[in-house]
Amino acid sequence: MKIIALAGGVGGAKLADGLAKILLPEDLTIIVNTGDDFEHLGLKICPDLDTVCYTLAGLGNPQTGWGRADESFNALENVRQLGGPDWFGVGDRDLGTHLERTRRLREGQPLSQITRDFCKAWGIGPTVLPMSDDSIPTIVLSDEGELPFQEYFVHRRCEPRVSGFRFQGVETAAPAPGVVQAMREADLVVICPSNPWVSIDPILALPTLKSEIESLPMVAVSPIIGGQAVKGPVVKMYQELGIQPSALAVARHYQDFLSGFVFDQVDQDLESEIQQLNVLTLCADTLMTSPTQRKRLAQDVLKFGTLLMEK
Amino acid sequence: MKIIALAGGVGGAKLADGLAKILLPEDLTIIVNTGDDFEHLGLKICPDLDTVCYTLAGLGNPQTGWGRADESFNALENVRQLGGPDWFGVGDRDLGTHLERTRRLREGQPLSQITRDFCKAWGIGPTVLPMSDDSIPTIVLSDEGELPFQEYFVHRRCEPRVSGFRFQGVETAAPAPGVVQAMREADLVVICPSNPWVSIDPILALPTLKSEIESLPMVAVSPIIGGQAVKGPVVKMYQELGIQPSALAVARHYQDFLSGFVFDQVDQDLESEIQQLNVLTLCADTLMTSPTQRKRLAQDVLKFGTLLMEK
Repeated sequence: MKIIALAGGVGGAKLADGLAKILLPEDLTIIVNTGDDFEHLGLKICPDLDTVCYTLAGLGNPQTGWGRADESFNALENVRQLGGPDWFGVGDRDLGTHLERTRRLREGQPLSQITRDFCKAWGIGPTVLPMSDDSIPTIVLSDEGELPFQEYFVHRRCEPRVSGFRFQGVETAAPAPGVVQAMREADLVVICPSNPWVSIDPILALPTLKSEIESLPMVAVSPIIGGQAVKGPVVKMYQELGIQPSALAVARHYQDFLSGFVFDQVDQDLESEIQQLNVLTLCADTLMTSPTQRKRLAQDVLKFGTLLMEK
Repeated sequence: MKIIALAGGVGGAKLADGLAKILLPEDLTIIVNTGDDFEHLGLKICPDLDTVCYTLAGLGNPQTGWGRADESFNALENVRQLGGPDWFGVGDRDLGTHLERTRRLREGQPLSQITRDFCKAWGIGPTVLPMSDDSIPTIVLSDEGELPFQEYFVHRRCEPRVSGFRFQGVETAAPAPGVVQAMREADLVVICPSNPWVSIDPILALPTLKSEIESLPMVAVSPIIGGQAVKGPVVKMYQELGIQPSALAVARHYQDFLSGFVFDQVDQDLESEIQQLNVLTLCADTLMTSPTQRKRLAQDVLKFGTLLMEK
């Protein structure tokens, strides 16, 4: 069974890691959002790609979910002392990634090739692909105008009120080499519990990918549990867009693509409403607070996916 | 008494630090070689400027003489793991300097202004000026062809045999803002014990600076003690250029500019030969193995300089 996982940052990385622990490396392709990518201190930073890779490599910081374990912040401390921009909390080990990636990009290497090489160096088995080698920056439409994603997310701490999103250049962007091929070979697409608006929508907005994906069974895992986000601004975004934040809202969000939907047991009362969207449901323990729980949720999702494929 | 010190890396930084400890900040201007500057991992690195600034700020590594004290190398370790260029041993704190400097240069700020801001942030009193805001890369002419300085110095560990040097673009380069003004107000120029070929000659090669400097009393301190270099490839360079390396050779090197020459007590037997070059001499303890010795040598040099000025 060949699986494609669509992932954003921390939550997506956790489920991707769970899937990586139970699938053969050749059976798992993780397609990662690059809409959050930005340039900082002259370096190209790909927060979601890095979170996924660090997590899969076992190099991630288990406390934060992003960044590196055993990290130091000496470069940033000096930048701060020199009056430079210190709002993005980049660690020293992490800096090595951005430095080497930026160096290679300037040499003309595509992001997908660089990511492949990095995965090899870090001993990551499954294929990790950026959604595109093209730049598709996510722009947050807000009451303070249009904001580049990291400006909104990190620098402004998600304070501006959101009114929509724009994935700049997505209409003419191509999926990264390998994405369409993986889609054609896949048996199932898993949408990891990432932010639907800014982690998964940018991937689904790629025209070529969209047309490929529609023919595949797709199961999504809700990032909203009991009306709350495990992490990040997803609940605030739903509210500001005038939608009651819930697992049901997430299911509605993906409605056009969805075969199955996985939501947390605390939301069991929403099950019949979700089923009315004409999707099969799995009520499970979706909170991944330990590596064991990542693996267990991945198993539940795959078992559920197998049922979907048989339908 | 207003002093200008011309300095390269470690040795120059030590005497500059000694001078900084006994002069009023407004009475000392340190003009630093930028011929070693290069781009690495997409970052502009100015090794001599950084060594001088870290030393004056008390942030330097007392063991190596260059780099930062209490330094980590986590970024470099990751770059190495990713197969990137790891031959230049850049530390994490040091990286912060290069990141912020490169960011500002890309914004269009001149190196001299950035250096002034960094000195202020680091609490450095005297004025530290790069010799120029223009790029004047030192090219080493060798038996393996022309090599950029850091390629020769760090990557190739000074192994190629040297046949000469070229300061690319120096003919049309301008001294950094403040350099000529400082020259005009100065009473004495001190050439610190840096490599004459690749630390001091690049500064003296600046056309405008050369014409200003010729009217000033100038005292040089030999970087060669007992035929040996305290640090770096200066002795190897003299040998490969067919010149017996010694304090005498250094005095001859600067002969056209020199009013006085300071050399180590172990080289007392060279004194009469040096005096035949028509320069006054000071035989002193020039080895600066402690901050106290830096200060003492600075005092000796200034006292000697005062004598020169009275002549």
